[in-house]
Amino acid sequence: MRTPTGAGQRTATLSDVARLAGVSIATASKALNGRRQVKAETRAKVIDAAERLSFSPNALARGLLAGRTGTVGLLTSDLEGRFSIPILMGAEDAFGSGRTSVFLCDARGDAIREQHHVRALLSRRVDGLIVVGARPDPRASLGPDLPVPVVYAYAPSESADDLSLVSDNVGGGRMAVEHLIACGRRRIAHIGGDPTYGAARDRTVGVLGALADAGLELAGGKPFYGTWSEAWGRGATRMLLEQTPDVDAIFAGSDQIARGVLDALHELGRDVPRDVAVVGFDNWEAMAANARPPLTSIDIRLEHLGRIAAQRLAAAIDGEPTSGTEVLPCRLITRGSTAPQT
Amino acid sequence: MRTPTGAGQRTATLSDVARLAGVSIATASKALNGRRQVKAETRAKVIDAAERLSFSPNALARGLLAGRTGTVGLLTSDLEGRFSIPILMGAEDAFGSGRTSVFLCDARGDAIREQHHVRALLSRRVDGLIVVGARPDPRASLGPDLPVPVVYAYAPSESADDLSLVSDNVGGGRMAVEHLIACGRRRIAHIGGDPTYGAARDRTVGVLGALADAGLELAGGKPFYGTWSEAWGRGATRMLLEQTPDVDAIFAGSDQIARGVLDALHELGRDVPRDVAVVGFDNWEAMAANARPPLTSIDIRLEHLGRIAAQRLAAAIDGEPTSGTEVLPCRLITRGSTAPQT
Repeated sequence: MRTPTGAGQRTATLSDVARLAGVSIATASKALNGRRQVKAETRAKVIDAAERLSFSPNALARGLLAGRTGTVGLLTSDLEGRFSIPILMGAEDAFGSGRTSVFLCDARGDAIREQHHVRALLSRRVDGLIVVGARPDPRASLGPDLPVPVVYAYAPSESADDLSLVSDNVGGGRMAVEHLIACGRRRIAHIGGDPTYGAARDRTVGVLGALADAGLELAGGKPFYGTWSEAWGRGATRMLLEQTPDVDAIFAGSDQIARGVLDALHELGRDVPRDVAVVGFDNWEAMAANARPPLTSIDIRLEHLGRIAAQRLAAAIDGEPTSGTEVLPCRLITRGSTAPQT
Repeated sequence: MRTPTGAGQRTATLSDVARLAGVSIATASKALNGRRQVKAETRAKVIDAAERLSFSPNALARGLLAGRTGTVGLLTSDLEGRFSIPILMGAEDAFGSGRTSVFLCDARGDAIREQHHVRALLSRRVDGLIVVGARPDPRASLGPDLPVPVVYAYAPSESADDLSLVSDNVGGGRMAVEHLIACGRRRIAHIGGDPTYGAARDRTVGVLGALADAGLELAGGKPFYGTWSEAWGRGATRMLLEQTPDVDAIFAGSDQIARGVLDALHELGRDVPRDVAVVGFDNWEAMAANARPPLTSIDIRLEHLGRIAAQRLAAAIDGEPTSGTEVLPCRLITRGSTAPQT
């Protein structure tokens, strides 16, 4: 437990230093770790306080380790739990099963509810927070003044002072098209999701990059954008095949869109993968594995994202915070929709 | 915060009474509320302790209310979060947004992990626990000796001393068939899920009851059991239509099975709902609303389950615990797969 300040023989903690300097623990930590985000004046105050309390940098790690409660909060706005539960599981695995509990709170994308949950988690002495956004676009930072480290996962923080972990949507789009090219496809179209999502536009950037590298053009002339739904996948496929009947591959922006693509191809009498190969995105097992044929998909590796979030959070708790945005690679999961499987 | 015993002027709490009597808080509460599960001898000890501490039944509510932390733990083994997140949201709504935080911990159906999370939650002073099982079959009780009340939701506890809230699977099966009969169908078949699930068998009981009441027989002669998958829905539909080509309605044991049923009917050239009407189960929005045609389904009302769990838990925290199994009714959501919609 973090004990109050004013102790006699007790070794000073980072929290004591912060209190004496009149700054947040995060700021005190940054100042003592020589990070650039801290003003020179603030840093001088923190170093002065640390000296007066005989606080040594090593005591930081010791103090925080001793103060650890073995509990981390996961604040999510993912209403279905489809993204946040795998991240939670990955984080728990990385922390070590039976040693750290991850408590998930659902903020439903509501700032007031989020603040309430943050207070509830902090008052329960969590060691750190993982924040999972509702969609993979930048979200507001919880700010620099929280008493515990924060890692933003799936959706990045708008602040470069925070650490954010995101999936490589550009790389995922590239990976899908490179796989289709490797399968011998040359007339590749892209049916994307909602273009107000950065992830939808990023995937297209990867698509166009991979095509350009291979000296190919996008079939249909442009990416088709719509919604993240099966209905859009069906409708867009019909439009596409009317305009460009010789298309031999479709990369869909999500597995739900891809399910619609498969249904429409089936109705139009096109064999998958013989006539048209199809790749989805997300590797949502319930959608991808049950498709006919089973759907090749780009896996955004949410459990891996959770594991890395836990590692970065543990490092920050131990006094080694990092900041900026880390982009984590996707992975291709091959199923029957791109290569006939026996 | 619950303060330690031995206070002088402080009003005695239920926790003091329990400690003096050498029983759990739950047992002390049951004894003072005159519930039958408590042995006469235990009850006498509790009443004796209550008298020595000048504890009055009204102090129970006061004491617990004062001791409330505004936090409830939700322990789940639902790996996808598909069932537990709506239950969490319903519970938070019932507790009152901004007043109680629900912390979700994922036990993954593992008893050791579950015990670890229970300890972590209790050490964070949660006011109560909601336990959500991995599947709707009875699960082991956490036991009678926890210091906070527990409500089992979705999967009932094996112990009748606990309070369990479950969906009415018999009623849901009946509701599906009654709807099909109301739509003029007479040759109704049932393609169920995994028969090792009590829920699969319960749904069939409802089906047979509704058919018997209408003087009808099950089309195909027997329920078809398999797995909770689209592939099973497709295969079973082909078998069924080969044996019983004149079937005019299929009730599927889950929305995933129903998706397979729709695909197979489509392939066999049967129009839905004109030739064959289809009803699913779960009302899983991503599956049901995106089907072609959109799928009529039995909604198990998970948010409602969460709300009732919160209400029962709040009552137990206030000293009014209940026990046994409460069966909550399902709801029919009508879409295009049973009635043509404009």
